[in-house]
Amino acid sequence: MDLHDAATPPRRRRADARRSIHAILNAARVVLGERPDASMEDIAAAAGVTRQTVYAHFPSRDALVVALIEAAAAEYLAALDAASLDTAPPADALARFLDAGWRFLRRHPLLLNPAAPGAPRPNRNALSDVVPPRLEQLIRRGQGTGDFRASLPAAWLADAIIGLQQTAAAQVAAGRATTQEAEALCLESTLRLCGGEARR
Amino acid sequence: MDLHDAATPPRRRRADARRSIHAILNAARVVLGERPDASMEDIAAAAGVTRQTVYAHFPSRDALVVALIEAAAAEYLAALDAASLDTAPPADALARFLDAGWRFLRRHPLLLNPAAPGAPRPNRNALSDVVPPRLEQLIRRGQGTGDFRASLPAAWLADAIIGLQQTAAAQVAAGRATTQEAEALCLESTLRLCGGEARR
Repeated sequence: MDLHDAATPPRRRRADARRSIHAILNAARVVLGERPDASMEDIAAAAGVTRQTVYAHFPSRDALVVALIEAAAAEYLAALDAASLDTAPPADALARFLDAGWRFLRRHPLLLNPAAPGAPRPNRNALSDVVPPRLEQLIRRGQGTGDFRASLPAAWLADAIIGLQQTAAAQVAAGRATTQEAEALCLESTLRLCGGEARR
Repeated sequence: MDLHDAATPPRRRRADARRSIHAILNAARVVLGERPDASMEDIAAAAGVTRQTVYAHFPSRDALVVALIEAAAAEYLAALDAASLDTAPPADALARFLDAGWRFLRRHPLLLNPAAPGAPRPNRNALSDVVPPRLEQLIRRGQGTGDFRASLPAAWLADAIIGLQQTAAAQVAAGRATTQEAEALCLESTLRLCGGEARR
């Protein structure tokens, strides 16, 4: 029974709604990650709710995908916040930045493969407005301390490194590297790009 | 008058057809580069032929786009063939490889921006099957001569560099760098990735 009668206290109703929304978003993350063209019915089934409950919270499949991407972005940013990017030694902070990205990509495989048939084409501004500036700030700090070479602009390096991680993720998606291999290649390449290796 | 009567000699007819095809493909390159959603009528007008002539050679807009991409790929490969990638000093060969890519992207701005509304989503196998192996071979040669560091696999570096050039091209498309700036950032970053700088 998904609908409450008028006697249900509002607080309990809100808590139930939050639980439903959480279950639906989590199911959408998993199901769409495996099958980007999965239907609202598939997602409802995986969440253990009715199709009507899904539609009560998300009026359309697109709305659900948008909410999923927003939730994913919030998670990613929280992970970056927790990574001490502003205080860790710059090369360590760079590795932590990449780790947060890999965790994000593992949890949200759908976002790895936006060209999949039937996949949503997310407007990734929620991420692209916020993530690159954090990396840029970290690189600028490392250039200031002399850990990284300063001859390339930090803003460019930030975009280049994010692109590198996407290239590495695509190698995994194409079966050309294991996740572990891709992570190692990406880290070593990122350090080379920043000139963090020249000092070893 | 686009259609020949029966009295036109076959050789002349074939030469006229080649000229038409060339004019249509060139117009498509320019017009679709500026407006990815341009119509067959727009392309016919730019080519100086009738819409019927366009359809006589290309039964659909998709067929025209496929032919345009094939022609672009052939051009790109010819430029790589002419670049002496197998014999020039490795760092020079790397710069020539990137130059050929930039010329290609300048001539085919449509392919820079496959996410543009109405733009074709080309199956880029014609390029992705052939271009990365050439770069990989060049990198492997440079690693063999000691011009590049050998601690990262050449196949990965080839994909990473092609991704880097796409990131740099996206900076131009987004108005964040001039073409000249993007080319310089890309070359310097590529040399860093290959460890070609460590030897300076």
